[in-house]
Amino acid sequence: MKLCCIGSRGHWGYVFESLREVPCVELAGISSGCEDPIDKMRRRCADAGFTPREFNDWRNMLDELRPDMVCIDGPFEKHAEMCIEAFRRNIHIFCEKPIALTLSDLERLEQAAASSKSRIVSMVGLRYDPAFYTARKRVRKGAVGKIKLIQCQKSYKLGKRPAFFHARATYGGTLPWVGSHAIDWILFFYGDADFHSVFGAQSREDNFGNGDMEITAQCLFRMKSGVIASVSTDYLRPAAAPTHGDDRIRIAGTGGVLEVSGGKITLIDANGTSEIVPEMPDRKLFSDFVLDIEGVRPGLVDNAATFALTRACLLAQESADTGKVVFF
Amino acid sequence: MKLCCIGSRGHWGYVFESLREVPCVELAGISSGCEDPIDKMRRRCADAGFTPREFNDWRNMLDELRPDMVCIDGPFEKHAEMCIEAFRRNIHIFCEKPIALTLSDLERLEQAAASSKSRIVSMVGLRYDPAFYTARKRVRKGAVGKIKLIQCQKSYKLGKRPAFFHARATYGGTLPWVGSHAIDWILFFYGDADFHSVFGAQSREDNFGNGDMEITAQCLFRMKSGVIASVSTDYLRPAAAPTHGDDRIRIAGTGGVLEVSGGKITLIDANGTSEIVPEMPDRKLFSDFVLDIEGVRPGLVDNAATFALTRACLLAQESADTGKVVFF
Repeated sequence: MKLCCIGSRGHWGYVFESLREVPCVELAGISSGCEDPIDKMRRRCADAGFTPREFNDWRNMLDELRPDMVCIDGPFEKHAEMCIEAFRRNIHIFCEKPIALTLSDLERLEQAAASSKSRIVSMVGLRYDPAFYTARKRVRKGAVGKIKLIQCQKSYKLGKRPAFFHARATYGGTLPWVGSHAIDWILFFYGDADFHSVFGAQSREDNFGNGDMEITAQCLFRMKSGVIASVSTDYLRPAAAPTHGDDRIRIAGTGGVLEVSGGKITLIDANGTSEIVPEMPDRKLFSDFVLDIEGVRPGLVDNAATFALTRACLLAQESADTGKVVFF
Repeated sequence: MKLCCIGSRGHWGYVFESLREVPCVELAGISSGCEDPIDKMRRRCADAGFTPREFNDWRNMLDELRPDMVCIDGPFEKHAEMCIEAFRRNIHIFCEKPIALTLSDLERLEQAAASSKSRIVSMVGLRYDPAFYTARKRVRKGAVGKIKLIQCQKSYKLGKRPAFFHARATYGGTLPWVGSHAIDWILFFYGDADFHSVFGAQSREDNFGNGDMEITAQCLFRMKSGVIASVSTDYLRPAAAPTHGDDRIRIAGTGGVLEVSGGKITLIDANGTSEIVPEMPDRKLFSDFVLDIEGVRPGLVDNAATFALTRACLLAQESADTGKVVFF
């Protein structure tokens, strides 16, 4: 399976995390996809034992090398365009999330997917985190009974953000960028994308000189089933905090309450409180996608979840932008 | 100061919690305010050393005894009417929350207050909880810098609820009943009632045979300042959980993040993570109100906060009922 990589702005590192587990993959070509220098990408490939061809023009790379799969992690605002070009060439797509920064781009993407043979997943790596992976398994097995309420939290250290984070046009916004993980947990734990409506709120003030970037955002989803799901995101985690992110989920159901926080899983049910030891998942994001395509086993993410997640992020943002409830 | 008590459906126990601290108060009369038997009220008064007169008709009690203050804890749906009658007689009011179950009742109440000499506070006892009291003090002193984001949680054990909980008309709804505490924390910690808009969601399904009662509800407030505040409430805490309630707040600001959970206070700021030991407040809900009225010192709650809280609860519920954003 021939792989090309475009860009390294986000989490293309996922490729290398499990590249050795899928020796069928040959890293054949790289392009930064923009004016970003390519030397870091080159070094990372060399460290993994590959000497891919280098291209200034990512389209030329796709046309010349005709890869089976492309990792897309160029400028955020070009995700959609790059994905569409890959769909047109029937190249499978491993793309940084969100795969589109606007709803119109998302629609163009979905149209391109409909007439393509290729698959797409975005980099929702937290599905593969031991605590979230294990917790979800337990919830799907009925640990909390029927799910009624979900609360998700993503809190990040701000740190020093590259300049492209400072403008909506190149960053995309905090609900799609940070919130996507939390919104993906809703899909992952709940197992269905039956969103009914969403209300969002966000704030750009007090963002420590980061231009347009929203320093905080929250949103509240009503699901058609009556499940209520909230998401809170912020960049306010102090630099002195012990970890970069403070990722949490709390799921309350008719039979119990399960939480993930600080990498720990706590369940309260009819038997009282217990801690569930996170197990190491038997899969990783990139290799899971490869093995799915190879027909070895179904992966944790599919096209439908990828599109549903992106739509949910963008509608939450539309609500936050307009102050109105947005219906799915 | 002559005190009468009407009803014991909710938290009138707050009176006895600090009655000894204000020996100026004489408990002169009691009425159940409805068909509820009065014997439990009588016993509780006797335990506290009082033998109040008993009245079938609470209006007669107010007219005959002309108390300085009345504790109102009769049927929820009569809170507003009872408060209005007290306002008309210039009797100070210590009322179970919410003081009104509908917006029209709240407006009538506010009109009655405007032409009365008396004060009102509702039973927002969690302001006086050691952890929340101490945490708020630290936040008001700048522990998290400028507040940007608030998340509140109230999770209760369902237990066996009296029949009046089963109908909206007599219960009022979960956002006003359970949510009021959490919404009050927003007012308490944030210090201002500059609500801009709210979106709410609630679910009556899977409520274990409790009629109309919402088993879950969440809401999201936008404040005019850009602060975003969410509230999650549920009755899904398992019976085997170690405590009745799971009360939490998380406040993220420009200088740190403070949380109250499980009675503990955790602060992360520029110095890293620290635990703040909750101090015993120098006041309790009922005596604080009495001492405020006596001119000894200002209490933690005032008329404005009481009305603002009730309005916020009812507008959150209106949003959940209609599925629309409601503006303040």
